[in-house]
Amino acid sequence: MKLGEIARALGCELRGDGDVEVVDVAPVEDAPPGTLTFLADRRLAAKLATSRAAAVLLPLDAPDLPLPSLRAAHPYLAFIAAIELFHPSPPRPAPAVHPTAVIAATAELGPGAWIGPHVVVGERARIGRDATLHANVTVYAGVSIGDAFVAHAGVVVREGARIGDRVVLHAGAVIGSDGFGYLPLPDGIRKIPHIGTVVLEDDVEIGANATIDRAAFGATVIGRGTKIDNLVMVAHGCQIGPECLIAAQVGLAGSTTLGTRVMLGGQAGVSGHHTIGDGAQIAAKGGVRSDVPARGVYAGYPAIDARRWRRAVSSLPRLPELLRRLRRVERAVGLDAPRSEEE
Amino acid sequence: MKLGEIARALGCELRGDGDVEVVDVAPVEDAPPGTLTFLADRRLAAKLATSRAAAVLLPLDAPDLPLPSLRAAHPYLAFIAAIELFHPSPPRPAPAVHPTAVIAATAELGPGAWIGPHVVVGERARIGRDATLHANVTVYAGVSIGDAFVAHAGVVVREGARIGDRVVLHAGAVIGSDGFGYLPLPDGIRKIPHIGTVVLEDDVEIGANATIDRAAFGATVIGRGTKIDNLVMVAHGCQIGPECLIAAQVGLAGSTTLGTRVMLGGQAGVSGHHTIGDGAQIAAKGGVRSDVPARGVYAGYPAIDARRWRRAVSSLPRLPELLRRLRRVERAVGLDAPRSEEE
Amino acid sequence: MKLGEIARALGCELRGDGDVEVVDVAPVEDAPPGTLTFLADRRLAAKLATSRAAAVLLPLDAPDLPLPSLRAAHPYLAFIAAIELFHPSPPRPAPAVHPTAVIAATAELGPGAWIGPHVVVGERARIGRDATLHANVTVYAGVSIGDAFVAHAGVVVREGARIGDRVVLHAGAVIGSDGFGYLPLPDGIRKIPHIGTVVLEDDVEIGANATIDRAAFGATVIGRGTKIDNLVMVAHGCQIGPECLIAAQVGLAGSTTLGTRVMLGGQAGVSGHHTIGDGAQIAAKGGVRSDVPARGVYAGYPAIDARRWRRAVSSLPRLPELLRRLRRVERAVGLDAPRSEEE
Repeated sequence: MKLGEIARALGCELRGDGDVEVVDVAPVEDAPPGTLTFLADRRLAAKLATSRAAAVLLPLDAPDLPLPSLRAAHPYLAFIAAIELFHPSPPRPAPAVHPTAVIAATAELGPGAWIGPHVVVGERARIGRDATLHANVTVYAGVSIGDAFVAHAGVVVREGARIGDRVVLHAGAVIGSDGFGYLPLPDGIRKIPHIGTVVLEDDVEIGANATIDRAAFGATVIGRGTKIDNLVMVAHGCQIGPECLIAAQVGLAGSTTLGTRVMLGGQAGVSGHHTIGDGAQIAAKGGVRSDVPARGVYAGYPAIDARRWRRAVSSLPRLPELLRRLRRVERAVGLDAPRSEEE
Repeated sequence: MKLGEIARALGCELRGDGDVEVVDVAPVEDAPPGTLTFLADRRLAAKLATSRAAAVLLPLDAPDLPLPSLRAAHPYLAFIAAIELFHPSPPRPAPAVHPTAVIAATAELGPGAWIGPHVVVGERARIGRDATLHANVTVYAGVSIGDAFVAHAGVVVREGARIGDRVVLHAGAVIGSDGFGYLPLPDGIRKIPHIGTVVLEDDVEIGANATIDRAAFGATVIGRGTKIDNLVMVAHGCQIGPECLIAAQVGLAGSTTLGTRVMLGGQAGVSGHHTIGDGAQIAAKGGVRSDVPARGVYAGYPAIDARRWRRAVSSLPRLPELLRRLRRVERAVGLDAPRSEEE
Repeated sequence: MKLGEIARALGCELRGDGDVEVVDVAPVEDAPPGTLTFLADRRLAAKLATSRAAAVLLPLDAPDLPLPSLRAAHPYLAFIAAIELFHPSPPRPAPAVHPTAVIAATAELGPGAWIGPHVVVGERARIGRDATLHANVTVYAGVSIGDAFVAHAGVVVREGARIGDRVVLHAGAVIGSDGFGYLPLPDGIRKIPHIGTVVLEDDVEIGANATIDRAAFGATVIGRGTKIDNLVMVAHGCQIGPECLIAAQVGLAGSTTLGTRVMLGGQAGVSGHHTIGDGAQIAAKGGVRSDVPARGVYAGYPAIDARRWRRAVSSLPRLPELLRRLRRVERAVGLDAPRSEEE
């Protein structure tokens, strides 16, 4: 494909030779010859000098480079369009229900569904138009799902869950398992019934082997457009706002509330009943034991303001030295060493 | 249902108008009109003043409130009974083995079993009375399971595992996978055979996508009544006592021993070959690298007594200030700054 | 089996009575009578004095003990051979494709395959000789797999993944799910297409419910002989070297590079785009936010040299005491307390 054609397809401004042949898209770090690349990060600009790429996507105001460029107001977005130009998604398979699938008599499947082998859909479940259920997916009774649903192999959706449009569940994700609620009594541990459910709003995406538990009452809610990575645990009764990004292995204890566009780094955790404000960010491995204000950036355990945390932990290795210096000062001023209160 | 009838059904004392109509149960935070609620936490008492609930479950000795109340020695337990009164569990499906299930000729299924579509039960597996195996469950050969077993969709029980009565396995849980044991040699990494198994005692419940590995020798044991949350990892050879509560994403390294009624907070970890005493509690994200005494309450990493830990980490952000103040004191007494031993 | 026969079978030197009857192998901690045990750890030597074991495997140069011994240059390796002598792996089931398996017409299965019930293999997938696919495994279209492949129940391999020889995937593992890459825009969150794949080289083993994501471009690579434990997350674009050992619940963010024979402790995490050098070790729960040099041993969060970390955290509980002592010194030299910069 010629660079000029790509410029037209993406609506980009062309600078340089539009007849250059482009064979694929590639990241700048190791772009093969003939590829279109882009500069996600200015620190990578040096790489371009030695790159064998045929052309590069750049912001409108970036200085010219030796190789031809396409200019876009949002180069990353244009690059995504370029990826899709060279690697269009395969067409959805023709609608079909595999003969080994077991669809309950009272279940309703919208038109356009592709239902893979060994899929099971329970009684009274309703699934909208154009669903794709890969092999070995299990949808329990009474589940309600919108249009353009995609469930990868091995997904489990428990009874009564309510799922919006364009939701994607990756392989092995479990939606609506019982919340972890027990009452320890002298003669045993009593399970607390969980009569609530799970709501996944439109455009939610849930990672592989992640688990979203049902609420004791009402619903655990994952807000519109929120994306959740693999192996994340969302406990009973969490209320997750729209367009949050939750990285892998995060754990949210019961009744955690997240605002809009909250970002949680990998392996972060939030203990129960706290609220994370709009736009807040928690660093990877952060452990939140308090509310977090809107746009707060927190890190550490217990999580505090990330800058304070970085200053504190960067001093931490000096603690043994500090103890020695303090003793030296105490000696210099004639103070006896206090008996350690700790040992 | 009238409040007086509920009082009789739950064996509670009635205070106020028994003719009040109750339509459902609900938590106090957002009880809709006409509901029965209860006060789990005295801090929520203020909420009752503005609650639209029709009635409330209270301890026998709590002061009277403007709305009618039911009194119970253990209000939470009575509330659970109330939940079950309004939301009785659906009856078990009539015994049946779905025609797509593959049950080995030498497997034994007790009476009353409901076996869902695409379930696989291996050779010589024995499962007791009233089992419920949801869709796509796989039970390998030689497994032995007691009565009233529930396995949700996608559960895998590996060969030879031994499971007691009334055990519940949530979707995607894996019981009896090989332990992670390898011997690094100059010419490669040798796998250590795991000839042991897993034992889940009576009334154990295992969360969604949790994994309980088989022992190298003998058995990994999960004690009677212990409840394990989603995405927990129990490694080879752990010995978990009865009635422990293990929150989500906890990881127990090989040969960890837990006593009776140990509680582990979410994302906590215990490194191998340590013993956590009866009634001990480890806070969320705690990392145990030592034995923990009975009834010890530990937090942090490495985990120490939780109060000591809280005091220490609350001082941590002052460390940079402390370094500056120490340097000021050194100057005041004429000591030169020691060359940092750390940088 | 007589001890002398075992000595011959294992190629070990016999010291003591070769006619002793050995009935099984067992670890030294609780060896039943008549068993062959071995001393993995010199600290356990005292246990041998009271052991009822019939014989013990020892290094060539270890002092003699009251009970008969087998001597080997590498006793652990000889012990593994002894385990396999007493507990030979069951023979592979006779080649067969279960009638409920759904194998696409264009898929290719090598000779010797055992394909369990409800397995699904997609179009154009190629699987080598002697594969074992347990029940409910799903292999998407276009996957390529070498010889002697083992996939336990519920495994999912997404489209296009490339897998070498003798690879073992434990139950519920998900290979090749979409990487977690999104572009937040003012009007929503745009998914970044992931046109890359996953490569698992020869002799890789992946734990139960672990997830290995596909790369945005190119491939996420797990190097030859690397072993990955349960519930581990390997994000898009990671490059894992050969013969690494990655313990349970580790999380590797995108584009992490691991050298040869890196060892990561349980629940450790590495943030994106860092490199861990050959032979480096990260302690359990360590959080790596920087490159780690070859043979570095790191711990803590942010991870630093493990000895420095241990010294620092062992002083941490003394921080409140240290603050009091510093105030005492300030008073002694007539300095006023600075207003805390932190509160």
